[in-house]
Amino acid sequence: MKKIVNRPEKMVTQMLNGIVYAHDEKLERIKGTGVIYRKAISKGKVAVVSGGGSGHEPAHTGFVGKGMLAAAICGPIFVPPTPEEVFQGIAISDQGFGVLLVIKNFEKDVESFLEGRRLALDKGHQVAYVIVNDDCSLEENSFQKRRRGVAGTVFVHKILAAAAENGSTLDELAELGKKVVRASNTLGLALSPAVVSEEHQAQFHLAEDELSFGVGIHGEPGYRIEKLHSSERLAIELVNKLKNHYQLAKGDQFALMVNGLGGTPLMELYIFTNDVRRLLELEGIKVVFKKVGNYMTSYDMKGLSLTFLKIEEEHWLDWLNEPVEVYGW
Amino acid sequence: MKKIVNRPEKMVTQMLNGIVYAHDEKLERIKGTGVIYRKAISKGKVAVVSGGGSGHEPAHTGFVGKGMLAAAICGPIFVPPTPEEVFQGIAISDQGFGVLLVIKNFEKDVESFLEGRRLALDKGHQVAYVIVNDDCSLEENSFQKRRRGVAGTVFVHKILAAAAENGSTLDELAELGKKVVRASNTLGLALSPAVVSEEHQAQFHLAEDELSFGVGIHGEPGYRIEKLHSSERLAIELVNKLKNHYQLAKGDQFALMVNGLGGTPLMELYIFTNDVRRLLELEGIKVVFKKVGNYMTSYDMKGLSLTFLKIEEEHWLDWLNEPVEVYGW
Repeated sequence: MKKIVNRPEKMVTQMLNGIVYAHDEKLERIKGTGVIYRKAISKGKVAVVSGGGSGHEPAHTGFVGKGMLAAAICGPIFVPPTPEEVFQGIAISDQGFGVLLVIKNFEKDVESFLEGRRLALDKGHQVAYVIVNDDCSLEENSFQKRRRGVAGTVFVHKILAAAAENGSTLDELAELGKKVVRASNTLGLALSPAVVSEEHQAQFHLAEDELSFGVGIHGEPGYRIEKLHSSERLAIELVNKLKNHYQLAKGDQFALMVNGLGGTPLMELYIFTNDVRRLLELEGIKVVFKKVGNYMTSYDMKGLSLTFLKIEEEHWLDWLNEPVEVYGW
Repeated sequence: MKKIVNRPEKMVTQMLNGIVYAHDEKLERIKGTGVIYRKAISKGKVAVVSGGGSGHEPAHTGFVGKGMLAAAICGPIFVPPTPEEVFQGIAISDQGFGVLLVIKNFEKDVESFLEGRRLALDKGHQVAYVIVNDDCSLEENSFQKRRRGVAGTVFVHKILAAAAENGSTLDELAELGKKVVRASNTLGLALSPAVVSEEHQAQFHLAEDELSFGVGIHGEPGYRIEKLHSSERLAIELVNKLKNHYQLAKGDQFALMVNGLGGTPLMELYIFTNDVRRLLELEGIKVVFKKVGNYMTSYDMKGLSLTFLKIEEEHWLDWLNEPVEVYGW
């Protein structure tokens, strides 16, 4: 296990310091916290705020900046921030028009963000939220096996923040968030687990020739392990499963994201994208927006996820296309 | 060795198809070649064109677009494109004001690009070039051990292309290119070699606790192997060696790039950046521009490089800061 780190317990703090240094014209940190906020938060607008455990870089700091998030609230690796940090992230972002929290659907994330919201409500802030559960690898929605929030969260950030920038109110954004989440589905696959440090043991084991479909961004179990064949076969599995979540009709338009989990070379992401392209062309599925790269990673996990977002309203596409000044989009 | 690929001999073609699909509003490919060009090449300007072997993604296709390259000419993995492809890349980019080639200083790249240039000169194109040799890990400049072109090439692209966009002539750009290259120094280190496919054997071997300083982007030998300690110690080695290449004076301004080689998580790149920050602050070295990310990779090599560029003229900084529409900057 070779790592470019210093002491493991300092990883997140030192990373956040590095991020603020590299982007010091735009980003600032509330000292002693995991809150990274935009120096020049848009006035007169609802602030969109997100966060969660670290280890998903560029999520979430890479989406803080003009046209996107007002702040990212970062916890330890794969652990959500505290309610107090969530409160501080809300307080520093609120320009008097309310704060919309984007929360990924993990039990502890939801708990911590909602408790932080309660603290903020007590202080007179208006705070709405949207819970993202785009991961469709789990059919059941039980306590143990609920749909998780994964790469589709990045589309949710982008659309909601652009809508906020264009003057949507807090209530409108909460409503829009639910719609965008319902229109989003993501499926991931892993070839190897994240290896973060000695303390974080491997989250699962795969043989030298195996992959697992449906693994989550913290190594949550997937739905099937099989032998790794070709990019094309992976694309067939993911595209077929994803398209079943939509009632396809002529004229439907989709956005797609091919998201690397941190340890997959860009060349492989584009090879996979090419296989997805061929399948979508065969199916006659019209794609009007595409992102390929590392957006919601799991440290250095080898693997990728594929997200479909059905563009249900034409301005969603405009909002995806609006320029932003962030380092991770 | 787990890869998301189909047949190894199709990797580059399928990747290029994926890239053109993902960015089809901006990029186009000359069929049957490794030439990826900008659909809307700026009229009335010198075109800046680069390229080399594939496996360095996002270099070089990620720098093609408004404000940056007119075309990237891509060879097989770690192998330069043919002279005929270089010629085609020049021909499609030339808007009548000449083409500037940016060539990394590897023997076969230089041969192929200069032969392609000769083909273009024969057809009446004006073609100048700049050879980038920012890698300062090798002191000697013999045939076998010459300074190679590595991540500093990305700064050269950015500055020359912005200057071209602002109306610089071909001769001015060739002169500017030499200056920027002389002001650039890069040092890399590797924790593990790139593992591309069964055919590409590992380029070097390191024990479980070793790293190598000075390894090149194709696995060319470095200058020292030692045991891996901390990010801080790596930063001390690279910063000390790099600063010795400059006669530091008060008021000097630098741009820096922390470049991942493909297999290093973004968290580690930012931790290392934070260590570089502390050293530069101690030294009183003023940094006015920073980039942290994967720009000039070696497929999935674990490791990074650090580039210093002394800002010798104030407008170099303006040119670094000008917005671009490319996927890799």
